[in-house]
Amino acid sequence: SSSSEIRRVTLIPGDGIGPEISEAVQKIFEAAGAPIAWDPVDVTPVKGPDGTFRIPSRCIELMHVNKVGLKGPLETPIGKGHRSLNLAVRKEFNLYANVRPCRSLVGHKTLYDNVDVVTIRENTEGEYSGIEHEIVDGVVQSIKLITENASRRVARYAFEYARANNRKLVTVVHKANIMRMSDGLFLNIAREEAAQFPDIKFKEAYLDTVCLNMVQDPSQYDVLVMPNLYGDILSDLCAGLVGGLGVTPSGNIGEGAAVFESVHGTAPDIAGKDMANPTALLGSAIMMLRYMNLEPYADRIERAVFDAIANGDQKTKDLGGNGTCSSFTADVIARLNN
Amino acid sequence: SSSSEIRRVTLIPGDGIGPEISEAVQKIFEAAGAPIAWDPVDVTPVKGPDGTFRIPSRCIELMHVNKVGLKGPLETPIGKGHRSLNLAVRKEFNLYANVRPCRSLVGHKTLYDNVDVVTIRENTEGEYSGIEHEIVDGVVQSIKLITENASRRVARYAFEYARANNRKLVTVVHKANIMRMSDGLFLNIAREEAAQFPDIKFKEAYLDTVCLNMVQDPSQYDVLVMPNLYGDILSDLCAGLVGGLGVTPSGNIGEGAAVFESVHGTAPDIAGKDMANPTALLGSAIMMLRYMNLEPYADRIERAVFDAIANGDQKTKDLGGNGTCSSFTADVIARLNN
Ligand SMILES: CC(C)[C@H](C(=O)O)[C@@H](O)C(=O)O
Ligand SMILES: CC(C)[C@H](C(=O)O)[C@@H](O)C(=O)O
Repeated sequence: SSSSEIRRVTLIPGDGIGPEISEAVQKIFEAAGAPIAWDPVDVTPVKGPDGTFRIPSRCIELMHVNKVGLKGPLETPIGKGHRSLNLAVRKEFNLYANVRPCRSLVGHKTLYDNVDVVTIRENTEGEYSGIEHEIVDGVVQSIKLITENASRRVARYAFEYARANNRKLVTVVHKANIMRMSDGLFLNIAREEAAQFPDIKFKEAYLDTVCLNMVQDPSQYDVLVMPNLYGDILSDLCAGLVGGLGVTPSGNIGEGAAVFESVHGTAPDIAGKDMANPTALLGSAIMMLRYMNLEPYADRIERAVFDAIANGDQKTKDLGGNGTCSSFTADVIARLNN
Repeated sequence: SSSSEIRRVTLIPGDGIGPEISEAVQKIFEAAGAPIAWDPVDVTPVKGPDGTFRIPSRCIELMHVNKVGLKGPLETPIGKGHRSLNLAVRKEFNLYANVRPCRSLVGHKTLYDNVDVVTIRENTEGEYSGIEHEIVDGVVQSIKLITENASRRVARYAFEYARANNRKLVTVVHKANIMRMSDGLFLNIAREEAAQFPDIKFKEAYLDTVCLNMVQDPSQYDVLVMPNLYGDILSDLCAGLVGGLGVTPSGNIGEGAAVFESVHGTAPDIAGKDMANPTALLGSAIMMLRYMNLEPYADRIERAVFDAIANGDQKTKDLGGNGTCSSFTADVIARLNN
């Protein structure tokens, strides 16, 4: 529904620069009249009975009610053996597809023009299974787990995403020449799904070849779908082409639930100094609006953000400007009616 | 020994364009008076009793005698289930370190200037263990195997390489935040080895971060050491920065044995047409000369190759020139005395 009935979103501002950039998003959304009400929740990790840190139950409960979340960066608890809370959120809500669009930004020059690719990463298994053993002293194995179910839902999501976003090509990225059974399964399922989407072109490519081609000519790619670790790698590579994690948005999509997040770090060195760049979190929030079928708000806010970066003088320092988080925010708001 | 006593090298010309580019190397080496005698060996795969293809025994025997090999590209036998013969060679001779220098070439412009990095890849285990199972229908696991021994020898090799080649920094590339035990072991061993080389700077970095930084500013890296798959990916990414696999050399180093190879494909479409670019195999052959302590020959041939690419008009088509494999070869020979 694209009605203007108010929708509640769980807001996890996160650590470090998280609160500042979250505030920027809230201000811009308010100025744009986006029909969103925020339920902020602190994710200061709680120590569970087994000594590991976990997401507070209020966050989990809120997510189960609201179904949609926006999330800033979370610190990984210090000390041996703690897992990333960023990953814990993806796991807790079974957010199976990690979507990261990378597009060249007018006003932020890099070596590349016209990058426009979307990596879609399997987000629940693969090399991130967490299953590891020491067989004997000095001999360790980690298990990469590939299942037909998880492969199918992410492959299908990639084709559906391509269709919904008017994209023409889906490339499945793999090393089935080496991991014949695991990547072979992922590849086969992608082929099966491709057959269900005859309107979308389908290609297969080795991960190493994609990395080589991507840095030479990114225009040959469009949507890319792949196992977990490959997505981690390729999404960062693509982010590098357009200016880094400070400008690239991300969404984690599950069965009826989704969390949109900036994937940069907490930047403790500049936290609280009004220097943080809110662009990645803003981009993620704009993806969230589209996910919620609130396209007109998404389009309007996106235009203002792009305009402020391309034509404004309030870009933050990391983008080569002299602005602050708050002056950039004000500039975006001033451009909402352009 | 850098004496000029003749040394025998096993030459595996390979398939497709392999024979042409091998001939180019032989001619240039002869013109340069390099003290190398070649033992060419055909690696048309032989079908073993179990139906899979294997390296002919004459090749294996020759390698055991000569200890040093130069290898063009090999086709992977067609049909389900055949493993790459390129990998079979690495495995057969336990060539544990895969060394791929990537340097910007004067005369072959890309988006990047002054790339000068060397990836050193663990070449025997990791994600390439070949151990995979289908647990139940639709659930597959592949095992990533990391051992202390293999990690140590490749880490040590990286530091020794850095020292011998007057390089200042070794970066270990890992995802020990995710694969805590396997990449954790690799990382720990790298740390231990780093402590033995106080003259070499040591850094640790996540693979995803390295990919992002590498496309933004490759000058921050020097020598990089990492598990097998990460090396496969990162070496291709780096090759992309300087012009692709047609210009980047590679060496596989083992205990007292080594095989140098071009890692591009067999290019069947241009095979036999005198269009192939011999640069990658030449570069690999030059690495081989250095490995054999024949530096003066290596330096002289390398200067001529660089000179022909930077200043000649006989570059092959893939480098934007109008030359052929043989005219480029002749041009390199003409420049040996410059
Ligand atoms: C923080 C880290 C655990 C995470 C990952 O490896 O997925 C990050 O790199 C990402 O891509 O979101
Ligand atoms: C051909 C293929 C099996 C090989 C690999 O994956 O190692 C290649 O990509 C390489 O880097 O030499």
